Amino acid sequence: MTGRLSILGLGPGSAAQRTPEVEAALAEATDLIGYLPYVERVSPRPGLRRHASDNRVELDRARHALELAQAGARVAVVSGGDPGVFAMASAVFEAVEHGDPAWRALDIQVLPGISAMFAAAARVGAPLGHDFCALSLSDNLKPWPLIEQRLAAAAGAGSVIALYNPISRARPWQLGAALDLLRQHLPGETPVIFATAVTRPDERIVIADLAEAQATSADMRTLVMIGTAATRVVARGEGAAPWVYAPRSVGS
Amino acid sequence: MTGRLSILGLGPGSAAQRTPEVEAALAEATDLIGYLPYVERVSPRPGLRRHASDNRVELDRARHALELAQAGARVAVVSGGDPGVFAMASAVFEAVEHGDPAWRALDIQVLPGISAMFAAAARVGAPLGHDFCALSLSDNLKPWPLIEQRLAAAAGAGSVIALYNPISRARPWQLGAALDLLRQHLPGETPVIFATAVTRPDERIVIADLAEAQATSADMRTLVMIGTAATRVVARGEGAAPWVYAPRSVGS
Repeated sequence: MTGRLSILGLGPGSAAQRTPEVEAALAEATDLIGYLPYVERVSPRPGLRRHASDNRVELDRARHALELAQAGARVAVVSGGDPGVFAMASAVFEAVEHGDPAWRALDIQVLPGISAMFAAAARVGAPLGHDFCALSLSDNLKPWPLIEQRLAAAAGAGSVIALYNPISRARPWQLGAALDLLRQHLPGETPVIFATAVTRPDERIVIADLAEAQATSADMRTLVMIGTAATRVVARGEGAAPWVYAPRSVGS
Repeated sequence: MTGRLSILGLGPGSAAQRTPEVEAALAEATDLIGYLPYVERVSPRPGLRRHASDNRVELDRARHALELAQAGARVAVVSGGDPGVFAMASAVFEAVEHGDPAWRALDIQVLPGISAMFAAAARVGAPLGHDFCALSLSDNLKPWPLIEQRLAAAAGAGSVIALYNPISRARPWQLGAALDLLRQHLPGETPVIFATAVTRPDERIVIADLAEAQATSADMRTLVMIGTAATRVVARGEGAAPWVYAPRSVGS
């Protein structure tokens, strides 16, 4: 049997946003590997071994997947959203680079998914419709001053900002500090969107002005988007949430 | 009949990367609206009127879609990739804001698609696996000095850069100028990826060092990704293209 490793994105949650090629890779897999909540999104079936692991053990998980593929398994490594965005694809290639040289000859494919930020953006309009940055707020793998520098650079350049990993039990103050920093660079009326558990039953969207945005509007499943001075909010009235979009034309 | 307007993303090309909710919206549409090459990607069928238009008439196209939905049609506005990324969603909400107030009450939904940059990234590994920016190189709707400022800010902050709209007949010099500017901020060995027509029959991937990267490697269908000093290239030997990835850990 020839092994294969597919690194795939399950999208934000709903199966209606999962691509056919991802479904096909899941259907032919012998081994499913990932962070527990993502593994649980895939239905069990005979012939599919499930290897769920805890958060923050990405490299161990990647090596395990590579070993199984080397032994002939058809392995599916699952991430939420897109696997190339703050997810498992980087961990797998890092393991390949520093691991058994034979791993470089393995059949590895990356299958993209609908990313959390685009699913979140779609729910409120088109807030990422112009130049934007995606930034992880986790200081587990990079120093906090670098995060501050990147936030200031993005805001100063007029870029919309999508924040991944905004808050967790182990990182309770970072989002509040980031919002405080952004208030020094952007007008108080700048729209901030907190999109939690998008497409899942407990989906929740909060739209606030930067001046009044609170870190408590976010949890581990939240994608935070910070607009620019150009971002538009279109009221719809009658209890409907407004549309938020980034104009296509700026500074001219 | 109650009208509806779906702004949807067809993904980079292959139907295997198109989501079920997008297929469902296409199946129930009465009117299909978009730039000609995207409209042509959807199979004709009885009961589906096709309205293809030229490039650079996004606002006219958006107003046409809103008028049809207002008159009771089920309209699908199609974009390649994701509709919220340098595509039709912003144009539609711009038309809503400045158009007939009744348009604000229309049933409008945005259905995300696999974006060009994530499909391109998946083909070479995980080059967008850490903080990154998405930037349109088109100076049709923003001044060139602002583009230069954003490129410098992103490179200076250590952000990977995904360039949309890198080149066209009407904008022949901008990509070369952008590469020249980036050479002042980044090491010559920084990997640059030119990903053209990803998932389509004529897909072409070129990986070059920034020092030697040429604008002639791109055309209108190319997504360009510029790494950082931290980006890794993993050789595979035997004529196989290398893997390129952004390490998850930086500066610590």
